[in-house]
Amino acid sequence: MPEAPLAVVLLSGGLDSTTAAAMMKAQGYRLLALTIDYNQRHRIELAHAARVAEALGVERHITLPLDLRSFGGSALTADIDVPKTGVEAGIPVTYVPARNTIFLAVCLGWAEAAGARDLVIGVNALDYSGYPDCRPEFIAAFEAMANIATRDGGFKVHTPLTAMTKADIVRAARAAEAPLALTWSCYDPTPEGRPCGLCDSCRLRAKGFAEAGLQDPAP
Amino acid sequence: MPEAPLAVVLLSGGLDSTTAAAMMKAQGYRLLALTIDYNQRHRIELAHAARVAEALGVERHITLPLDLRSFGGSALTADIDVPKTGVEAGIPVTYVPARNTIFLAVCLGWAEAAGARDLVIGVNALDYSGYPDCRPEFIAAFEAMANIATRDGGFKVHTPLTAMTKADIVRAARAAEAPLALTWSCYDPTPEGRPCGLCDSCRLRAKGFAEAGLQDPAP
Repeated sequence: MPEAPLAVVLLSGGLDSTTAAAMMKAQGYRLLALTIDYNQRHRIELAHAARVAEALGVERHITLPLDLRSFGGSALTADIDVPKTGVEAGIPVTYVPARNTIFLAVCLGWAEAAGARDLVIGVNALDYSGYPDCRPEFIAAFEAMANIATRDGGFKVHTPLTAMTKADIVRAARAAEAPLALTWSCYDPTPEGRPCGLCDSCRLRAKGFAEAGLQDPAP
Repeated sequence: MPEAPLAVVLLSGGLDSTTAAAMMKAQGYRLLALTIDYNQRHRIELAHAARVAEALGVERHITLPLDLRSFGGSALTADIDVPKTGVEAGIPVTYVPARNTIFLAVCLGWAEAAGARDLVIGVNALDYSGYPDCRPEFIAAFEAMANIATRDGGFKVHTPLTAMTKADIVRAARAAEAPLALTWSCYDPTPEGRPCGLCDSCRLRAKGFAEAGLQDPAP
């Protein structure tokens, strides 16, 4: 029997990336998990990513420091307030310049070095924040570039959540036995380390569980 | 008079990136310089990059740690010997998986955050080591991807050296007053911190100066 294929998953420790990883595992992939410590405001997610990686039984988990606060330009990496009044139209100030390009590029580097050909990112183009680097056309362009950039090409960028609503994602997470109790979504934790409940990420998460008719198992 | 445009230059401290930066400066661009500390074997180049950045009068120089040794897969980031017997056909073991994709992605992040639209990389497709991520078709694919990935697009990736021989680059460096005496090219410095003279990078550099009929000003 041939060995199961190896996929490198970008794992933030949130609902979406944890679900995407669990779905790939359920499909039979062996997993490597990559978390980027970009000096994000919500660095509490890093500890959650480590717990999720362990619960998923990944073969290796790397948390790579890559300080995007050096550049700023986002409410997640500079002293800009995180919006709390609801998900608005347009690209919000929580957009981090070129974040998914950077993350997928690093993911590609690990994949090529490890002999993996499958990259996984939990982007979503329906119930999302409007970031340009979550759209299917971005993923297609990245994949095309990756296959020219590398020694042998043949890379595929998996986006299992791209056409799902947040409620679909919650249901898919349950079906794939994703360890949602360990995940973290909030962009702007309280000083006590609890979710704010008001940022876009908290709102989208709550909407997903509500519409799926399920209780959020995270504390 | 409108302010001069701002370009973000990937600066390794070597002959090519220093020349590319000096050419952009000579064309009237204001420069930001980005050096990646990827835990490379020849980390001595980082100090050279800092001196070059200062000599070029860049507005800001960032040396960003991004440890590609976590992934390995290259003679520059793992315990694999650097070849010393001459430049061979094919992709050599000094190829670092997805390095230029990663570097350009980070460069794009800074550019978008800083309001710059011009990225600069000193890749060369003639007298080069055969890396896939130095080819013009890679640069075109990256640029196309970058303009979908970002808030407003409009990015251009400048590769002023792409069609030059190493001798052309040495001549262009002199014309643009590039501080070549401060540069470092060797992949595998001696324990005393001198160039080995035998790796591909040393050989290509020597060939460039010889064919241009000029003396290398670096010690």
